[in-house]
Amino acid sequence: MIETDALILGAGPAGLFQAFQLGLQEIRAHIVDVLPYVGGQCAALYADKPIYDIPGVPVCTGRELVASLQQQVAPFAPTLHLGQELTAFATLPDGRLQLTTSAGTQFTARALFIAAGIGAFQPRRLRIEGIDAFEGGALHYHAPEPASVAGKHLVVAGGGEEAVASAIALADASPASLTLLHRRDAFDAEPQQLATLQRLRENGRVQVVTGQPTGFATGGDGALAQLVLSHAEGPDTPLNLDLLLVRQGLSPRLGAIADWGLAMERKQLVVDPANCATSLPGVYAVGDINHYPGKKKLILCGFHEATLAAYDAAERLVTDRKVVVEYTTTSTRLHALLRA
Amino acid sequence: MIETDALILGAGPAGLFQAFQLGLQEIRAHIVDVLPYVGGQCAALYADKPIYDIPGVPVCTGRELVASLQQQVAPFAPTLHLGQELTAFATLPDGRLQLTTSAGTQFTARALFIAAGIGAFQPRRLRIEGIDAFEGGALHYHAPEPASVAGKHLVVAGGGEEAVASAIALADASPASLTLLHRRDAFDAEPQQLATLQRLRENGRVQVVTGQPTGFATGGDGALAQLVLSHAEGPDTPLNLDLLLVRQGLSPRLGAIADWGLAMERKQLVVDPANCATSLPGVYAVGDINHYPGKKKLILCGFHEATLAAYDAAERLVTDRKVVVEYTTTSTRLHALLRA
Ligand SMILES: Cc1cc2nc3c(=O)[nH]c(=O)nc-3n(C[C@H](O)[C@H](O)[C@H](O)COP(=O)(O)OP(=O)(O)OC[C@H]3O[C@@H](n4cnc5c(N)ncnc54)[C@H](O)[C@@H]3O)c2cc1C
Ligand SMILES: Cc1cc2nc3c(=O)[nH]c(=O)nc-3n(C[C@H](O)[C@H](O)[C@H](O)COP(=O)(O)OP(=O)(O)OC[C@H]3O[C@@H](n4cnc5c(N)ncnc54)[C@H](O)[C@@H]3O)c2cc1C
Repeated sequence: MIETDALILGAGPAGLFQAFQLGLQEIRAHIVDVLPYVGGQCAALYADKPIYDIPGVPVCTGRELVASLQQQVAPFAPTLHLGQELTAFATLPDGRLQLTTSAGTQFTARALFIAAGIGAFQPRRLRIEGIDAFEGGALHYHAPEPASVAGKHLVVAGGGEEAVASAIALADASPASLTLLHRRDAFDAEPQQLATLQRLRENGRVQVVTGQPTGFATGGDGALAQLVLSHAEGPDTPLNLDLLLVRQGLSPRLGAIADWGLAMERKQLVVDPANCATSLPGVYAVGDINHYPGKKKLILCGFHEATLAAYDAAERLVTDRKVVVEYTTTSTRLHALLRA
Repeated sequence: MIETDALILGAGPAGLFQAFQLGLQEIRAHIVDVLPYVGGQCAALYADKPIYDIPGVPVCTGRELVASLQQQVAPFAPTLHLGQELTAFATLPDGRLQLTTSAGTQFTARALFIAAGIGAFQPRRLRIEGIDAFEGGALHYHAPEPASVAGKHLVVAGGGEEAVASAIALADASPASLTLLHRRDAFDAEPQQLATLQRLRENGRVQVVTGQPTGFATGGDGALAQLVLSHAEGPDTPLNLDLLLVRQGLSPRLGAIADWGLAMERKQLVVDPANCATSLPGVYAVGDINHYPGKKKLILCGFHEATLAAYDAAERLVTDRKVVVEYTTTSTRLHALLRA
């Protein structure tokens, strides 16, 4: 059971900046995200694309923005719990909040900051009965360490940018063979990526196989050894493998949050725009997940909302000083924190 | 008479980012500021100090932030009218807004964005009857071009950071002599600046003279030639000069805005937080000047407010497309604008 002042649900741009603003208020935070990496949509959906409307940053990629936000929050070293979905929520009799993740991690927190964006990102899964048992072993939904691929017969399943990018990246990791598996021999990615893929195919470093995985077979040791592929016409075919990486995109799912008793409008959490407080005491919502009159789903709006929420939480949680607006430029208290 | 869709009052961070957000909406803007440079408080009060809470920018000085904002808004090339105070405001019968500056420039605008911060920055002036007549000639309140100082007997009046920094900077501009004039021989600046000043004094490149300027005398050609200094004890003394730079700090003054009939609370303009609209149609207020429940006087809050105001104005002014939230990352319309 982890006790913390603040728990932040979601490590997207709003969640990361929430941890920074709480840090300025001397409120330590833990952050939970179901993805195995931080950055939310910026990292998961458009890491290499340029963003032009971060104020004071004429252009940066999604990945660069996330790196800057991580650097900014570094002095406050929030504890990250990645690869875990926050699922259960309850208010304890003393007003503290109790939360549990899919991995069984339990928190009690005095304030919860829901920065869940458009929902918990879930990889689109293979729909083959029984195959889930191999997850984490021979079956992966997020790119594995390149070293773990060496010498293996690797199959990457998917037809979009993620699958193509993974195939290109892992072709350099010395697999025994690398097969890109998709319904049809047509891929949806940037022209440059498609050209690289074409070169790898011509050099024999990537094979493309078409078909719909509908079953699997195991080897003598019980390990996943073969996918069974169905086709529009003709009989099923086998595809041998050691390692299966499924990259069929991520899909956000609001999930359990909708059942926590928070006031909602459409699929957003209704907040007071003055402090981003939800309808439950101690629970704030910031970023794409929240709603108030005039709300725009933009990164810079999440930054503002996280700031208002941090001030409001500080007014409740901080007892050893009066909470007033302080400038990072001039406040000796803030300088000491930022340099620590 | 300049006709424009949008007029922005104030070239601080909020005003500059307002022009960027209006640019994304294809609304061209003119910007007026009483200072001879852009950047508001960041440029005028703490250009060389670090800011740590611009989201995605772990650290930058006031000057660097302003430079980034200028670079970001560059594709939209807002027209700047610097060194002019916006003083007169009226609503025309057709709903357009009419505005006039202290320099006589007249605008009609369909929307006004008041980003006046803590007020129009005014240099603290010399209070000597009749000396105003020399302003722009021998008398300056903002740092002149270094070239204009060469060969001149220059007096810099003031005891703070601005005066010390000006003296240090202009000592390199080959004046015939450089005198730093202050009530007493004690200056309020960073230790490093004080050390540099001390070196310049030891090298004879800067003289310090104490006294209170209370009068002046002109030369045969009618030009300002001498200040008369009073002292706590003893008789007045003369101080000869060709050029007088008064650097006694800037003081913000809300000025005429308070008389324009806008709803106010204390010295702030009351706005609807959903769109930053003031009590008068077509008039928005963003940044430090506005007030709504939860308002924090921070730079990042002005960025958010400018965004909401731009969307609201676009809904009123843009007729050739439906105004919806668009991502700079993916919108081909925005890409075309940003690359133009
Ligand atoms: C292609 C594209 C381009 C874009 N371009 C721009 C742009 O140019 N400018 C701009 O301002 N905005 C842009 N956006 C929007 C921007 O990405 C979002 O506004 C921003 O990511 C929202 O940040 P957030 O932190 O609120 O949520 P998110 O980035 O969505 O992050 C939320 C995180 O919470 C996690 N999460 C949710 N629920 C749970 C749970 N129960 N347990 C654990 N983890 C959970 C999710 O996995 C996710 O990582 C773009 C969006 C897309 C898709
Ligand atoms: C020493 C110091 C340190 C700070 N540190 C930080 C920090 O670390 N982080 C942070 O977020 N904030 C900080 N701030 C606050 C920050 O500077 C302000 O929030 C920000 O400048 C407000 O921006 P603005 O554009 O609303 O107004 P301003 O920056 O005040 O700009 C307003 C402009 O409008 C002009 N103007 C006003 N009226 C008129 C008129 N009638 N006609 C023509 N021009 C007019 C003024 O001359 C001025 O240039 C600090 C402030 C100070 C003083």
